[in-house]
Amino acid sequence: MSVIKEMLETYPKEFGDVDRPKLAECIAACLECAQACTACADACLSEDMVAELTKCIRTNLDCADLCAATGSIFSRHTGYDANLTRAALEACRVACASCADECEQHADMHEHCRICAEACRRCEKACTELLNTL
Amino acid sequence: MSVIKEMLETYPKEFGDVDRPKLAECIAACLECAQACTACADACLSEDMVAELTKCIRTNLDCADLCAATGSIFSRHTGYDANLTRAALEACRVACASCADECEQHADMHEHCRICAEACRRCEKACTELLNTL
Amino acid sequence: MSVIKEMLETYPKEFGDVDRPKLAECIAACLECAQACTACADACLSEDMVAELTKCIRTNLDCADLCAATGSIFSRHTGYDANLTRAALEACRVACASCADECEQHADMHEHCRICAEACRRCEKACTELLNTL
Amino acid sequence: MSVIKEMLETYPKEFGDVDRPKLAECIAACLECAQACTACADACLSEDMVAELTKCIRTNLDCADLCAATGSIFSRHTGYDANLTRAALEACRVACASCADECEQHADMHEHCRICAEACRRCEKACTELLNTL
Repeated sequence: MSVIKEMLETYPKEFGDVDRPKLAECIAACLECAQACTACADACLSEDMVAELTKCIRTNLDCADLCAATGSIFSRHTGYDANLTRAALEACRVACASCADECEQHADMHEHCRICAEACRRCEKACTELLNTL
Repeated sequence: MSVIKEMLETYPKEFGDVDRPKLAECIAACLECAQACTACADACLSEDMVAELTKCIRTNLDCADLCAATGSIFSRHTGYDANLTRAALEACRVACASCADECEQHADMHEHCRICAEACRRCEKACTELLNTL
Repeated sequence: MSVIKEMLETYPKEFGDVDRPKLAECIAACLECAQACTACADACLSEDMVAELTKCIRTNLDCADLCAATGSIFSRHTGYDANLTRAALEACRVACASCADECEQHADMHEHCRICAEACRRCEKACTELLNTL
Repeated sequence: MSVIKEMLETYPKEFGDVDRPKLAECIAACLECAQACTACADACLSEDMVAELTKCIRTNLDCADLCAATGSIFSRHTGYDANLTRAALEACRVACASCADECEQHADMHEHCRICAEACRRCEKACTELLNTL
């Protein structure tokens, strides 16, 4: 997280009106969620009941892809495009909500789903808060 | 493109109502556009006038990230989630439109921008058509 | 494939000694293999015997990640770094060989594994041939 | 970092001999480095002297791609493949060394290059240490 903030602070041009702490939090939440989803998909794959977790694995993989893309997009500030930014953030928010809903159904049985669901909810919240400032 | 179609045809479960040829076209368009944007960012970087192409490079990178994520998401069919799918497709469509708009401004001067803008427009169209069937 | 070639042809600076047709083939093979691996992982996930395909799914996901990264790296030509290029190509070659070995074990039973194994072998070969020219 | 560790601890099967703290550190270093490189490429793009930073931008982008792929690969533990793992780790290590070398040349002039070079060195070190345990 400290490197994310340092990189934001050393960006050489103006940012416009963006809320920097919320932006740093959103980048950190995207990276954390992408990693948690990648790891949760793999942990589900190693469960004996993997056949009942295939929707969870798939949603994890989709959510990881969108969080990684969004984390990269929010790490760039040059030539800001409001439409593209909002559309990426909205897609990430929806993916996190879907993945949290899915993982929460298995949270009682699988700790990795519980932890992943929490990471998804944090990222969903960070995206929502950032969307509200744009 | 033929491998994309073959992989679709050998998926072991039902697809529901999705229009398979449009889906295959959309995956192919996402991959083509992601690669064109990655290459266009790099070609812009090697232009003597790179300082005037920084917004183009940035939009290329964002578009590449979203097209790659969307191409992966559309290569999965297990545990389909309509909200997530639509949000990803919409983000990809918006990114392709933004990147095409940007590249078209340099198309007269840079062939790589002209070719990339065309790939973006094809992907925007493929996403729009697929969105209309969902 | 034609867009990959066109982007190579419109790169504005010199390439040095690289074999352009082999480079274009290698990029195309990386993208094809990444998509096939992503789709094969998902198809395996929908098989009734998914519990016996978990190693295949995992190797597919790793191979997709490395092929996508390598396809992007080979789409860039500015500021060429021979060590980095060779290391990426070698990692991609090894991943494709591992994934082909794994998918071939299920090729008689699952058509998606057969098609994916062939895409992996093509990409392994394209990487090996390009490595030999560097 | 705490979520990375929690996901490791909740993986349902055996890990074999891998050094878990070093693995967690390596995943965290890969994600941190990928983000720093993405942000450094963008910060370089906004410098007035961007024309002198094109090799730095390109190396940043390659390093980000390999660190992201390697971070995902190390987040998976099912069906471990030693050859693939070592090849990915080696490619990541080489990319981080190349990118650190490049960014260090601009570290006196650009704070973002200094911070990015440090993130690259940390990731290079984490990869080297993990390689030594495999």
